[in-house]
Amino acid sequence: MSKHPRITLVTGGARSGKSALAESIAADHEGGRIYIATAEAWDDEMAQRIGLHRDRRGSDGWRTIEEPHNLAGALARTDGQGVRLVDCLTLWLSNVMAEGQPGPHVRALCRALDAQKSPVVVVTNELGLGIVPENALARRFRDEHGWMNQAVAGIADEVWMAVSGLPLRLKPQRGTP
Amino acid sequence: MSKHPRITLVTGGARSGKSALAESIAADHEGGRIYIATAEAWDDEMAQRIGLHRDRRGSDGWRTIEEPHNLAGALARTDGQGVRLVDCLTLWLSNVMAEGQPGPHVRALCRALDAQKSPVVVVTNELGLGIVPENALARRFRDEHGWMNQAVAGIADEVWMAVSGLPLRLKPQRGTP
Amino acid sequence: MSKHPRITLVTGGARSGKSALAESIAADHEGGRIYIATAEAWDDEMAQRIGLHRDRRGSDGWRTIEEPHNLAGALARTDGQGVRLVDCLTLWLSNVMAEGQPGPHVRALCRALDAQKSPVVVVTNELGLGIVPENALARRFRDEHGWMNQAVAGIADEVWMAVSGLPLRLKPQRGTP
Repeated sequence: MSKHPRITLVTGGARSGKSALAESIAADHEGGRIYIATAEAWDDEMAQRIGLHRDRRGSDGWRTIEEPHNLAGALARTDGQGVRLVDCLTLWLSNVMAEGQPGPHVRALCRALDAQKSPVVVVTNELGLGIVPENALARRFRDEHGWMNQAVAGIADEVWMAVSGLPLRLKPQRGTP
Repeated sequence: MSKHPRITLVTGGARSGKSALAESIAADHEGGRIYIATAEAWDDEMAQRIGLHRDRRGSDGWRTIEEPHNLAGALARTDGQGVRLVDCLTLWLSNVMAEGQPGPHVRALCRALDAQKSPVVVVTNELGLGIVPENALARRFRDEHGWMNQAVAGIADEVWMAVSGLPLRLKPQRGTP
Repeated sequence: MSKHPRITLVTGGARSGKSALAESIAADHEGGRIYIATAEAWDDEMAQRIGLHRDRRGSDGWRTIEEPHNLAGALARTDGQGVRLVDCLTLWLSNVMAEGQPGPHVRALCRALDAQKSPVVVVTNELGLGIVPENALARRFRDEHGWMNQAVAGIADEVWMAVSGLPLRLKPQRGTP
């Protein structure tokens, strides 16, 4: 494994420190830094969350792109300009599923990731570790989200899980079966 | 630890790749392969999930037994016929709790696992890592399920957790206290 | 890392065996043992859970202090009297948030932990790994809880996560980025 992997996935629960971990991994790369935000600030709570992330990241050296839907396109047109930090796949999937079947979009994202020459750090959530949701839509989102995570983790060079702010390495790993 | 442990537990969240991981572990064993399904196809959504699993597994070399309740009996009568893949304990516990106290059934399952001569790969879920459910029945299920997982993990030779499709080894492990 | 770290954090899901793990870590220390319970037995279900924990711990060598709110004070006045087991931060945060902003209380707790001369084993929960709660209060609790966990894990010498009754070491760890 090289010191600077090309595709890194950072997963974890809510408030587990995954964005901060992803930022520290991205900051380890040389050259330009591009933050690809998938969030849409559709209410006050979300606007506040976005503000918190922006404040922590600071403005030095980061350029921000808002891309709630066409992640594959945003990756293609920024390749060669430095490390990209995508935060996060969960909101992106939620945006994409609001408009139809997510499968083709997830496959397009994976092809785009696979084609990148410059590094990408991608943030996602683990959200299938609670009790089965009573809401059918939540169950479907949980399914699609889990399949998306598997697909992206499958092509990533490194995968980390943040737990209580601490990094746990999932890939590459010693002792896999 | 031998290359082929006798009792393997695979846990993980929803859509974390735990069934595929369990299948790859089971496929590593020589001889016959028996799939013990605990699911009852009581609605379309469940029928579809069962179909997905069956399609991935394929038909080559697998014999399927449906046993929603008497897992201990199914293990006893298939011992000596090859590796058994039990998928999954969560649905089994749900079936068992629909009829009364689960404690005696969990203890009978553990005794049956302990008595096996042929290998068994058991799939379960981690479902206690979300917010406390508002529903008292869900809280009770979460409690009983956690105790079941602890009991089975305690007698298993190997325990794996699937996260975003990646295997994380929990037992045996270096660095335990 | 010394054999007996000063501050140990044990996290995990519901019924994951985290209290039993914390007790076994605390029992490894010499001298007096003080159990600091943050639970208030406000209903039958909670009274039963408290009773289960007390029965397992036994009475030999353990002194129990009930402190639902002022954890920093309880740690300060018991320092020098042996190992303290705090069970758990989740209920404490819930008690604290019922009365106002948790931030100052979490910071006071972290300062108190940092100042301890005798060892402390602290139990918390991972609860951000399920689907986003529909309830705004639950989302806020999840956020504050995650930030608390990150703060305490940051100053802890050792952090463990219990999964299906098995310990997974998060800190210190090999292979962190």
